[in-house]
Amino acid sequence: MLNRPAVPRAVLCLGLASQDTLWRVPTLPTEPVKMRASDVLQVGGGMAATAAVTVARLRGRAAYWGRVGRDAVGEAIVDELAAEGVDTAEVRRFDGCRSTVATVLVDRAGERLVCTFIDPALPDETDWLPLERIAHFDAVLADTRWPLGATAVLAAARRHGIPGVLDADISDAETLVSLAAEASHTVFSAPALRRFAGCDDLAEALRQSCRARPPGAVFGVTDGERGSLWLIGDRVQRIPAPPVRAVDTLGAGDVFHGALALALAEGQGLEPSACFAGAAAALKCKTFGGRRGTPRREQVDALLQEKERWS
Amino acid sequence: MLNRPAVPRAVLCLGLASQDTLWRVPTLPTEPVKMRASDVLQVGGGMAATAAVTVARLRGRAAYWGRVGRDAVGEAIVDELAAEGVDTAEVRRFDGCRSTVATVLVDRAGERLVCTFIDPALPDETDWLPLERIAHFDAVLADTRWPLGATAVLAAARRHGIPGVLDADISDAETLVSLAAEASHTVFSAPALRRFAGCDDLAEALRQSCRARPPGAVFGVTDGERGSLWLIGDRVQRIPAPPVRAVDTLGAGDVFHGALALALAEGQGLEPSACFAGAAAALKCKTFGGRRGTPRREQVDALLQEKERWS
Repeated sequence: MLNRPAVPRAVLCLGLASQDTLWRVPTLPTEPVKMRASDVLQVGGGMAATAAVTVARLRGRAAYWGRVGRDAVGEAIVDELAAEGVDTAEVRRFDGCRSTVATVLVDRAGERLVCTFIDPALPDETDWLPLERIAHFDAVLADTRWPLGATAVLAAARRHGIPGVLDADISDAETLVSLAAEASHTVFSAPALRRFAGCDDLAEALRQSCRARPPGAVFGVTDGERGSLWLIGDRVQRIPAPPVRAVDTLGAGDVFHGALALALAEGQGLEPSACFAGAAAALKCKTFGGRRGTPRREQVDALLQEKERWS
Repeated sequence: MLNRPAVPRAVLCLGLASQDTLWRVPTLPTEPVKMRASDVLQVGGGMAATAAVTVARLRGRAAYWGRVGRDAVGEAIVDELAAEGVDTAEVRRFDGCRSTVATVLVDRAGERLVCTFIDPALPDETDWLPLERIAHFDAVLADTRWPLGATAVLAAARRHGIPGVLDADISDAETLVSLAAEASHTVFSAPALRRFAGCDDLAEALRQSCRARPPGAVFGVTDGERGSLWLIGDRVQRIPAPPVRAVDTLGAGDVFHGALALALAEGQGLEPSACFAGAAAALKCKTFGGRRGTPRREQVDALLQEKERWS
């Protein structure tokens, strides 16, 4: 079943955009060593920015709103997003601030270690955000790295009755609770949910976390190759992901969130949306290079057509 | 006792030059996590290149011979060395190759985790090295990252009867044995010696390693804040290092080797040379920023004048 709307739906993504340097290593370090990488490459990253690239590759209309420093790295970040077809008109460049950078080690199994620098001087103010334009989008996605910005766009989405997806990665509990209060769909990463709920079992952690769930909202958690879990009422449902040989999981969660937001923007139900997102994220993991591996719509559709084989 | 020669002595350093990105983190990772850096900076690195900078800062005449790719990173590496006063006339730029880069996480205790990419396409040939010029140097230093180049300059130094210091960091045993055969002074890093000798105790490992020591040559090992150990005949002697509050140990070994080579070039004996090198390396550890923290001669001399307090 192909759920492609005649007119591409528009998704706004607000949050982190970074320039990542990826190092391909045999194994991730567990102590202070000198190690050798077999390859290194630079690629844009950041949760919201990668979600925006995902929306664009999956034939949605993507806009990214966020903050960079007025520096060469910031220009490279914006240029790459624009080259992917993402609307970058509302990226704000801040004088005297440094753009976000990350270094990422990726091992043979595709597991990754991420170290990010976000300039604390980047202003938190949101008064420049053109919130009146939210009504023109079909869904909004925000990550937790700029909480005031995320609150502003998720609250606006809620007022306009359009889906608001929160990419709930590791943050302090207060931030997660206040952001989840504005989101229609809060999708945790597994480590974030475990920490938030203080519980290792993801199904139990989802149930525990529902104290933070506003009425009518959906809570879910991504669980890597095991797919995603969703709290439907009081019931936890697992949506499996297609099996792939993972070589790089960097950005897989971001691709999941971007694809989910697009599917919701297209009016797909939760289960097909989560399935679509899981397929997109799985395909991403087959390619080394962070979000370079983000699939095209055709690839996701083809994988979904074989769904009976893996679900 | 200040052992400054009227005419600065010349030290040739051959081996690795890199561009390093340093990430200041609370603790080094032991599993695949997302972590935040409080600061990030770029600075030149590489063992031989940092040794050359050390020689220049300590008022020697330094030359660096080595290989970079013909790319922007290579130019940045060369420009920074030249700005430090290092002679870079014999840096060879190779078309179609990438320059060496490294990412380094540094924790609150100054401990570091290094990941380096060295382009395997960098040609190993040494026919372009102007070995006839070795006679104009007072000492030669080489690291293990370009074994053929290191062999060429250490052998030439031996023929000319000038000190040849091998920075014996982790490498395969065969490489270490063949390079040590040409060096007058082989100075291991502690992890490299432990691996080479298959023995945890450094004094015992030094004794074990003497099967690889050519007649008349000196073997030593750096041991961080505990100074350095030297195999004098069959006796192991420890040269203490001055106590400092370490905030960044990146490059400390390179500074040690560069300072040692300069002191030997100046005709200082082994014990004062090792003491000088230990003081220079200790001072480096007080400053965050890899080799940015390499001290000047005055600072090392001042610390050595207080030697009775710490030795």
